[in-house]
Amino acid sequence: MTTDIDLNCDMGESYGRWTLGADEEIMPFITSASVACGFHGGDPHVMRETVRLALEHNVAIGSHPSLPDLMGFGRRVMDVSPQELKDYVCYQTGALREFVRAAGNDLQHVKAHGVLYNMLEKDDALVRAIAEATRDSGGELIMMALASGKCDAQARKMGLRVASEGFADRAYNADGTLLSRKLKGSLIEDPRRAAAQAVLMATEGRVPTMDGQQIAISVQTICCHGDTPGAPTIVRAVREALEKAGCRVRALREWLPAGEKSLHQKPQQN
Amino acid sequence: MTTDIDLNCDMGESYGRWTLGADEEIMPFITSASVACGFHGGDPHVMRETVRLALEHNVAIGSHPSLPDLMGFGRRVMDVSPQELKDYVCYQTGALREFVRAAGNDLQHVKAHGVLYNMLEKDDALVRAIAEATRDSGGELIMMALASGKCDAQARKMGLRVASEGFADRAYNADGTLLSRKLKGSLIEDPRRAAAQAVLMATEGRVPTMDGQQIAISVQTICCHGDTPGAPTIVRAVREALEKAGCRVRALREWLPAGEKSLHQKPQQN
Amino acid sequence: MTTDIDLNCDMGESYGRWTLGADEEIMPFITSASVACGFHGGDPHVMRETVRLALEHNVAIGSHPSLPDLMGFGRRVMDVSPQELKDYVCYQTGALREFVRAAGNDLQHVKAHGVLYNMLEKDDALVRAIAEATRDSGGELIMMALASGKCDAQARKMGLRVASEGFADRAYNADGTLLSRKLKGSLIEDPRRAAAQAVLMATEGRVPTMDGQQIAISVQTICCHGDTPGAPTIVRAVREALEKAGCRVRALREWLPAGEKSLHQKPQQN
Amino acid sequence: MTTDIDLNCDMGESYGRWTLGADEEIMPFITSASVACGFHGGDPHVMRETVRLALEHNVAIGSHPSLPDLMGFGRRVMDVSPQELKDYVCYQTGALREFVRAAGNDLQHVKAHGVLYNMLEKDDALVRAIAEATRDSGGELIMMALASGKCDAQARKMGLRVASEGFADRAYNADGTLLSRKLKGSLIEDPRRAAAQAVLMATEGRVPTMDGQQIAISVQTICCHGDTPGAPTIVRAVREALEKAGCRVRALREWLPAGEKSLHQKPQQN
Repeated sequence: MTTDIDLNCDMGESYGRWTLGADEEIMPFITSASVACGFHGGDPHVMRETVRLALEHNVAIGSHPSLPDLMGFGRRVMDVSPQELKDYVCYQTGALREFVRAAGNDLQHVKAHGVLYNMLEKDDALVRAIAEATRDSGGELIMMALASGKCDAQARKMGLRVASEGFADRAYNADGTLLSRKLKGSLIEDPRRAAAQAVLMATEGRVPTMDGQQIAISVQTICCHGDTPGAPTIVRAVREALEKAGCRVRALREWLPAGEKSLHQKPQQN
Repeated sequence: MTTDIDLNCDMGESYGRWTLGADEEIMPFITSASVACGFHGGDPHVMRETVRLALEHNVAIGSHPSLPDLMGFGRRVMDVSPQELKDYVCYQTGALREFVRAAGNDLQHVKAHGVLYNMLEKDDALVRAIAEATRDSGGELIMMALASGKCDAQARKMGLRVASEGFADRAYNADGTLLSRKLKGSLIEDPRRAAAQAVLMATEGRVPTMDGQQIAISVQTICCHGDTPGAPTIVRAVREALEKAGCRVRALREWLPAGEKSLHQKPQQN
Repeated sequence: MTTDIDLNCDMGESYGRWTLGADEEIMPFITSASVACGFHGGDPHVMRETVRLALEHNVAIGSHPSLPDLMGFGRRVMDVSPQELKDYVCYQTGALREFVRAAGNDLQHVKAHGVLYNMLEKDDALVRAIAEATRDSGGELIMMALASGKCDAQARKMGLRVASEGFADRAYNADGTLLSRKLKGSLIEDPRRAAAQAVLMATEGRVPTMDGQQIAISVQTICCHGDTPGAPTIVRAVREALEKAGCRVRALREWLPAGEKSLHQKPQQN
Repeated sequence: MTTDIDLNCDMGESYGRWTLGADEEIMPFITSASVACGFHGGDPHVMRETVRLALEHNVAIGSHPSLPDLMGFGRRVMDVSPQELKDYVCYQTGALREFVRAAGNDLQHVKAHGVLYNMLEKDDALVRAIAEATRDSGGELIMMALASGKCDAQARKMGLRVASEGFADRAYNADGTLLSRKLKGSLIEDPRRAAAQAVLMATEGRVPTMDGQQIAISVQTICCHGDTPGAPTIVRAVREALEKAGCRVRALREWLPAGEKSLHQKPQQN
């Protein structure tokens, strides 16, 4: 049996006069791009350019909504209410979608940016908020969430089309959570090691942990971070290793099954 | 023959802790709302609430994009390039559209906010930019533009569905432009006078000017500003006078003819 | 013996096109104004105008620094580091000080705005950060802190000139903390009740609590919030009651003793 | 006779997660740093770090105020009023000054950033605004202005301590204005050519122009831009060439004469 796997990266995080990431070099090797929407990076000009670049490489596009914290790059916990979060996700996703539609395509997914991604693992009400925003947008958007995590489980229960995400360039704790960025060794910068971890996750459903063991993990998309040093080399190594291992590296929308509950129901507004 | 006319007002210009305008009181009397999208007012929470309020009163919704100047409320000329403007309009329109779609409806129109509205009368390249952004969004959006103005003419040539706009609460110069806000008498605060001006424009295609004459004007939508003192009273008086004069006060989308060129052509991207 | 007491209020929280508060009506009755510095309200124009208004009424001026959250009015917890907070306080205080100096005066105090005020009661490192920022500014600035609270105690230990603050318009818990704004009855809107509470705090060093008792409290400044309905009436009632009770209502800088450790030491930079 | 000359560069233009410029490499070779204050770059953290770096290298510090346009890096003309500009300069200069004072030093100068620098050559009222803001700050701040330009002349007439600025890395028109950045050849990227131009300006009071001639120019400070490719190499070459030519490269405050009118007069407020 051939394994389908998606390879995603954060893109479009430049802003105004400031450049961040190596989007031009990375885009040819990924299948899904999570694009900043202005709250942590990505001004409207950058968004349009990033959409153009992604479509040029036939890369599927998702929104990468953030807490409203440009100065902190969306990496500081903020005590937003579920309704505030829902509104922020709706705003950012819609802004990006307009660029994608103007270019003749549509969005594939939503993936929370920065600390918001982590906050979802700890707060059910926030998961519900982002899941509702994703569902209400009416386009059967896929939601990316940490594999084996609480957000993943809850969004699936809500009937969303969810892609479980594994990280090629991050070390895992024994319980399946990511080793904190503040700890040494949390980042895997060796392209071969990142590639090996990606292949193990995609083909065998396992990932090595800090205690020298391996645990089970089920992933449909693999993330490499775009702003780490050497990111283009890592992404390319991961892509090539996945293909060499026999995976079909394709965008999620081409193969990921729909959520269990019908998404064609009229969204419930509140 | 019965005259169709649209009555529009700027809505949703509150932001965070700050309240502006009397949206609750005005919404029942208008047929189209131009909603702030975050660049001069209107945070995501306010946008969602304004969309809800508009739909509750069966009011058609348009985006009210602004220059990126929260501190100046979009009222200061900025030397933005046509591409920058196009991107800003796309961003803001998309953000608002997502809220409208999540609520089960869609956008009707685009109307430039503040000084941008005036800049369009002086710069063809900016008109082209906002017209392209409006057209590329793919939903046959109507563009509102100053009646008898250059933007109106150019957008029509480009094939857009354009609504010529007259102002009930502003005084006109002899050449059909608006008397500058800096000059005394520019604002018409007497509800009866505003109502009379609206009726004259809608039913006879004429408007009084500062030199005591009347000039020809063709309008499909009449604007009352939402942030002037006594706005709710003025709007109500205008609405009632229009109906008393036999006009059908209805949202543009229900009766405004399409643009001359097909809008179903694939948008040309750049 | 005559009691000295300061009466302070948050001022200058308008922003751009948006007006908030009743500064013109309140300023004549207070002795200290805590002025917003741009992070939650108060653009540069508003800051200059507020400084002018305060000096016109001989009111002492302090900075009212906030977390960087314009959309949330500084009322949402953000996980800022102590160094970030120190930098934010330094930035905002300096910006305001320049307006005050250009008007021929200088700052009196620093008071944390919004949720930051509460965060200081729970995080020693943040107290140290704001206290260092206050001390390093070199002008013997007074720091306002919740009477009987942890921030107050710690800042005094660090040698700062601290003014313990009591609230005329807020209900107290039995342990001396403020009743949460989310609970009914937390806000005292009756001018007479607010005035009575202010007098009791200032002259007898006690305050009524929710359980019907009174507890000891030592205050040097009494706060009335500027954005509650009826604020001008409350402030005036408090002022008049304090004077009727024999208090000398004067700005802190005129009578508050210096901190215990010398502040003329060269600030220790880090 | 030995010539005194100042060598300045824009510094501290990073923001949040985004890095811009090569401050660490350039700082050792300059004598004055114009530091971004948050409106076009330079968040509070970056400001503090830049101040620390400058003082470490004994570099004099000035504020580099900008129009409020983070997305456009202060490079787009905005129609701000003189009073608005004055308030923006006051705000930014004060914020930076606080960091400098907390580090035991004080500001040396004010230099307009980006397009604002050019706007001053065309609008007397704006010059008056920034000059008043500079003067009112009370510290005998020096104002940097384009050598031979209108702002320079007007600020001198107003009695300010002005440093006329020449550019080592920009080509000049025959009338002494800078060749527009939009034209080819406007940027001098060859370190030797930039160095030669700097020496010619400093020692002989002349500068080559586009038509192959040389014109007279009187400069007290020479600027190299910090964000051009190869900036550190250019700055170093300019510094070494100036010293080799016998100039004393020293910060302005050490040798620049005071303005003609007394600055100790009480500032006139408006």
